[in-house]
Amino acid sequence: MPEQLTLYTAKICPYAHRVEIALKESGLAHNRYEIDLKNKPVPAITYGGPLVSPDEPSPESEKLAESLVLLEFIADLSGSSSVLPHDPLLRAKARFFIEVFSSKAIPGWYASVNRGESTEAILNGIDAIQRLLPAEGYAIGEWSIADAAVTPFLARADLAFKNDLGAYNKGEGKKAYEILQTDPKFQRFRKYFTDVTSRKSFSETFDPESILSSWRVRYPPLREKRLADGSKI
Amino acid sequence: MPEQLTLYTAKICPYAHRVEIALKESGLAHNRYEIDLKNKPVPAITYGGPLVSPDEPSPESEKLAESLVLLEFIADLSGSSSVLPHDPLLRAKARFFIEVFSSKAIPGWYASVNRGESTEAILNGIDAIQRLLPAEGYAIGEWSIADAAVTPFLARADLAFKNDLGAYNKGEGKKAYEILQTDPKFQRFRKYFTDVTSRKSFSETFDPESILSSWRVRYPPLREKRLADGSKI
Repeated sequence: MPEQLTLYTAKICPYAHRVEIALKESGLAHNRYEIDLKNKPVPAITYGGPLVSPDEPSPESEKLAESLVLLEFIADLSGSSSVLPHDPLLRAKARFFIEVFSSKAIPGWYASVNRGESTEAILNGIDAIQRLLPAEGYAIGEWSIADAAVTPFLARADLAFKNDLGAYNKGEGKKAYEILQTDPKFQRFRKYFTDVTSRKSFSETFDPESILSSWRVRYPPLREKRLADGSKI
Repeated sequence: MPEQLTLYTAKICPYAHRVEIALKESGLAHNRYEIDLKNKPVPAITYGGPLVSPDEPSPESEKLAESLVLLEFIADLSGSSSVLPHDPLLRAKARFFIEVFSSKAIPGWYASVNRGESTEAILNGIDAIQRLLPAEGYAIGEWSIADAAVTPFLARADLAFKNDLGAYNKGEGKKAYEILQTDPKFQRFRKYFTDVTSRKSFSETFDPESILSSWRVRYPPLREKRLADGSKI
């Protein structure tokens, strides 16, 4: 019998969402435990040990954290090439794709929605991964953890921009949304976005309404505070 | 016959040094090509394609970059558990060790030597990985790419502090060196540092004299500039 695997997660968190998607794709049996982000770090996994209440993890289970570490763990544990191929070159390409997204797009996401800076950085980050995409298909052709790593952020950017929610000035989100929706430059990206968000592993793990409820509380004060502080952006 | 593998590297660069250590440990046949850091990014690997002059890489070879991607590539390519074990939990622990070092110690390294900030951040980062070490041995027990990832930075910190080279005030490096050498708090770290730097893969790839020559040109002006700018640190 396989070891128990419990994921500590939170719907709002893109890092936790990465792991939920990968777990769905892997087919590994697991328990999902939604926790209050304010109290504990997510995502985290307990692996092995007795089946216990997730409120009180067993000292006999292994505790693992960090979303990218967990993606690789899921790939290793499942051993399935449908999560990460076995070919060393394809694996390197998947990891490079994640690295480019982490260093270029994620800082741009936080800069715009949390600090109200221009959306240019995240658009440039999206363009950087778009340039790595093959003509058809996912990050490295077949679906892999590289796609799990970027999809939660792309879906949240789409949602935030469409609803103009963020610390940026009113209208800035809508502008970025329009660019991503219509600019010929982002044509390949649009196809990719449709592909990754059409998968069951995504639709079953993404709850836009709960995320929007949270953002409607979080972002308007950030925008007001920034405007009150006299920031120009 | 295995595919050709060429590493583009530079002795000064800790990221490139990671890959050199891992290649030595892997036993994979490879060509080493020292390049001028100013012109091209290192580390980079060309893999496959015909054997050509490294000055003009073949369009038929694959080009890979990013040191952590390359460490995993070397582990995947060699398939050897002496570079990265096959057990999913040990692999997760190796990657978590690297993540903690990357997020805590490396920013502290640049903060102190390049910007002259306190050495506290790097000492805290070293303490953070020290707490992850098992009672004996390497990051996850047996040597792995987790050790390749941290050793080049630890060796450079040791060298910089011992020689008081950095943008920090005169004497700050020596102080950090003394703490790392004598503070009982760092006892486990000292054993680890001796272990990782005693390996042939390290001694054959570390050239302190060439690094020092470069630093003796680079750091004194940074220190002077910082003092002239009136920075207090």
